[in-house]
Amino acid sequence: MRIAMAQINTTLSDFKYNSKRILEDCHKAIEFGADLIIFPECALFGYPPMDLLERDSLVQKQNKALEKLVKKLPSQIDVLLGAVTNNKKSGKKYLNSAVLISKNKIAKIFSKELLPTYDVFDEHRHFEFSQIKNNIIKYKNKSILVLICEDIWAWKDLNPFQHEKNPLLDLNKKIDLSIVLNASPYSLNKSHIRKQVAKKVTQKLKAPLLYINMCGAQDELIFDGGSFALNSKGKVTSQSLFFQEDLKFINLKKIDRKFTTPPALEPNEELRQALVLGLKDFVNKIGLQKVHFGLSGGIDSALVACLAVDALGPNKVCALALPGPHSSQLSFRLAQKLAKNLNIEFHKVDFNQSYKSLVADYEKTFGRKKFGLMHENLQARLRGDILMAYSNLNHSLLLNTSNKSELAVGYSTLYGDLCGGLSPIGDLTKGQVVELCQHYNVDHELIPNKIITRPPSAELRPNQKDSDSLPDYKNLDRSVEKLVVKQKPATTKTDRKVLELMYKSEFKRWQAPPILRVSQHAFGRGRRMPIAHKGLD
Amino acid sequence: MRIAMAQINTTLSDFKYNSKRILEDCHKAIEFGADLIIFPECALFGYPPMDLLERDSLVQKQNKALEKLVKKLPSQIDVLLGAVTNNKKSGKKYLNSAVLISKNKIAKIFSKELLPTYDVFDEHRHFEFSQIKNNIIKYKNKSILVLICEDIWAWKDLNPFQHEKNPLLDLNKKIDLSIVLNASPYSLNKSHIRKQVAKKVTQKLKAPLLYINMCGAQDELIFDGGSFALNSKGKVTSQSLFFQEDLKFINLKKIDRKFTTPPALEPNEELRQALVLGLKDFVNKIGLQKVHFGLSGGIDSALVACLAVDALGPNKVCALALPGPHSSQLSFRLAQKLAKNLNIEFHKVDFNQSYKSLVADYEKTFGRKKFGLMHENLQARLRGDILMAYSNLNHSLLLNTSNKSELAVGYSTLYGDLCGGLSPIGDLTKGQVVELCQHYNVDHELIPNKIITRPPSAELRPNQKDSDSLPDYKNLDRSVEKLVVKQKPATTKTDRKVLELMYKSEFKRWQAPPILRVSQHAFGRGRRMPIAHKGLD
Repeated sequence: MRIAMAQINTTLSDFKYNSKRILEDCHKAIEFGADLIIFPECALFGYPPMDLLERDSLVQKQNKALEKLVKKLPSQIDVLLGAVTNNKKSGKKYLNSAVLISKNKIAKIFSKELLPTYDVFDEHRHFEFSQIKNNIIKYKNKSILVLICEDIWAWKDLNPFQHEKNPLLDLNKKIDLSIVLNASPYSLNKSHIRKQVAKKVTQKLKAPLLYINMCGAQDELIFDGGSFALNSKGKVTSQSLFFQEDLKFINLKKIDRKFTTPPALEPNEELRQALVLGLKDFVNKIGLQKVHFGLSGGIDSALVACLAVDALGPNKVCALALPGPHSSQLSFRLAQKLAKNLNIEFHKVDFNQSYKSLVADYEKTFGRKKFGLMHENLQARLRGDILMAYSNLNHSLLLNTSNKSELAVGYSTLYGDLCGGLSPIGDLTKGQVVELCQHYNVDHELIPNKIITRPPSAELRPNQKDSDSLPDYKNLDRSVEKLVVKQKPATTKTDRKVLELMYKSEFKRWQAPPILRVSQHAFGRGRRMPIAHKGLD
Repeated sequence: MRIAMAQINTTLSDFKYNSKRILEDCHKAIEFGADLIIFPECALFGYPPMDLLERDSLVQKQNKALEKLVKKLPSQIDVLLGAVTNNKKSGKKYLNSAVLISKNKIAKIFSKELLPTYDVFDEHRHFEFSQIKNNIIKYKNKSILVLICEDIWAWKDLNPFQHEKNPLLDLNKKIDLSIVLNASPYSLNKSHIRKQVAKKVTQKLKAPLLYINMCGAQDELIFDGGSFALNSKGKVTSQSLFFQEDLKFINLKKIDRKFTTPPALEPNEELRQALVLGLKDFVNKIGLQKVHFGLSGGIDSALVACLAVDALGPNKVCALALPGPHSSQLSFRLAQKLAKNLNIEFHKVDFNQSYKSLVADYEKTFGRKKFGLMHENLQARLRGDILMAYSNLNHSLLLNTSNKSELAVGYSTLYGDLCGGLSPIGDLTKGQVVELCQHYNVDHELIPNKIITRPPSAELRPNQKDSDSLPDYKNLDRSVEKLVVKQKPATTKTDRKVLELMYKSEFKRWQAPPILRVSQHAFGRGRRMPIAHKGLD
């Protein structure tokens, strides 16, 4: 049996495009003599569907698209694809399913048992639990088990989010092959854990496994692809590409063939590719053509600039230098140099006159104010105003340049430097930002070294340094990793300070832009913290 | 048997205060000779705990507070209270429980079976399902069933969000009384539906029911109290207050006594009291003392002003008039008049100079621009800058003044009039805003009538009217109700226009402030829509 693994990039609720994309790969697969082609979880609807599933009319549209697709599909090949299906029993309206289409008919529907309802996942919000014991089919004399994503994740040692049971442990029938359809979002090193999880399944079932993952990004989530096949001993014998579409073929008879797993990407390169895909897909899928951002001469905006150029090419990227009353000449020169290196549009807007005027307008009513937080915030907000004015006039997406360490402690001005339609580096700690910049410079000095080495400063008051208000970034990063990603208790003085600042700034993150998720636990929609509470643990 | 129903207002994770509040009512109840006192769902932790439950250290703190409370409680009374408990079996870490404390010992723990995971609820994110068949206890010779909130909501005709089963239908044991602990958030007319739901339970079990609800607000959710008792025929025989704390006593022997249910609040008065509580608790629970907002002379900010005064008193409320280049003199005079009527602090900040300056700064770099959206947005954003400057200098919370109809179609400037730490009227349609203003004027002209009657305008360009860009508000409101609250398909031309504008402006609402929820489906955290998608249904 020859199986095609179609790792495609679909768009949420774009049934026309998604159907077309599915058809394309079916035709290609026929050319290569495949008997069966498999597509990712929710391939037709896109993932995550979120509350689009509350629009019954939209699900009906998907159902019609599926009907149409069933008729249109070439009969020479069988197709297994992820789709939302109606739950005919009681409970939530829908099932997260895999549909087997054979000779222009739906031959069988398999549905997901374990519904992730944690972190970024809300599956039990709309989907009802099913039972994988009903997901076995006899196909070309093989007993095939069809699973969907979370169905294989109930191993207590490998998933911190525990399920009530592991349904795989109750399966007693002989299985010849398991096929797992996935929309598994990226986080650093996730592909390694996926393989460990899948290996457990092959060990339990003593059968090979095909793992097909989605590729492409949706809002905050990046799907990295990297589909793979394991033989019955859990050894990788096929590996699809990461961060791009791919169509691979598995000959079941040759599943034990010798195969050398390609070396894993270096972590910084992995992060770079993830963020580039996330940025590119967000811009393309919302239908904009250009991006811009404030280029300060600091390290965060420097990284955003590099990522944007990688994602869209230099002619779709514009940098604005917005030097304020406390910005150094050096900052401007460094920004200018980087823009030149990247070959991107670069403009300087001097807003000092407006800043003075706005302070004066305020003081006319309220009297003279000593220089303080208000003045700092006004500078950041006027920058936001100018960046958004550029958006208005150029149909360009403003990229936010905050990193996770800053976001954690609220070291950012709401409606100021927190502006933006997307935060590409909001899930990178300051240390990761530095490393990724160094990674960009590995061959030549793309980012002027001074940007990387000089002490970080918001330049909102004279001689300001981040270290005046914040713990040393090394310690801050460590606390953020501990408190946000791992949810450990605060044990050090820095931890307690960071936790306090974090809870105090919850109101800012409530209004932050979508953040590309590259860690196991990011700020953004996967973290749902209240604002009014007294917790300090 | 005499049971005290303690409808209290607790704060999320403020275990010290919550314990104190619980103790207080226990002592009061002893004075009135109660055998048992009952508190709402999650009374000790507060509700909704959201991802605070990912902080194990915080739950441990609650557990210690519970231990301490158990020791401290007076032994003359038994106590049934809602708390988070550890799940000792597999699955999610916690159970949503009711703890029965008798003579300084935990006598029994009852846990919730039906976990709402829809709209604003995320319970299966952290809680595991339990079984109510284990929630029956023999107490003073009565067979008592303890239920928690959603446990009574699986009636298909009364809850649009369907559960896989209704566990009450499987109960066959004789029950003498059911006690339901709730943290049931307010929406208009919700108290009526609650009674219908509870009546079904009394009919099934042929036993009286005590419904104890939480009171007070947490971020977007308002808990309206309104606890009640039903006799075995489902007739209301006790009614606690709405929107405030209350301690009521039920003599089980007299549960069939004659009782005239107090008349329901007039809908506008109900909304007013809900919003006032929501606003007051948000400000108090985040620990701020004052609020302010831009008072434009339009109807939305007029309503916010009235609500703020009702919530906090006039001396904690400040209104800023921020007339722009296209604001009318009339608008200013109306704002001034209203501020005078309300006896609140009132200031005018003229930002015309800054506006001209900012446009000039921009044009210096990018060349002359024709008046357009950029100019309109800049006015709104400069207002935001000034209002936030006032926040900085006065530790005052900026109230947002957007309504639901505007929010739906994105008729608002991100980082401009979308600024604010809380949106008190973001779940009211324009029609509801008008009605509520009329309600405020029922006795005398508190709000200058002209504010209510003149055609709405953002006054961002010459002679602008909302009706230039938007469907007539009557039609818009109807579409919003249909598409957002009821999730019906778009059938009219207005529906389709509204849906298109709604999907296009999803990115704005992603970054909107918390919105006090008063409808069955609000914008805010209970509505989770993606940004990048092609759905138009």
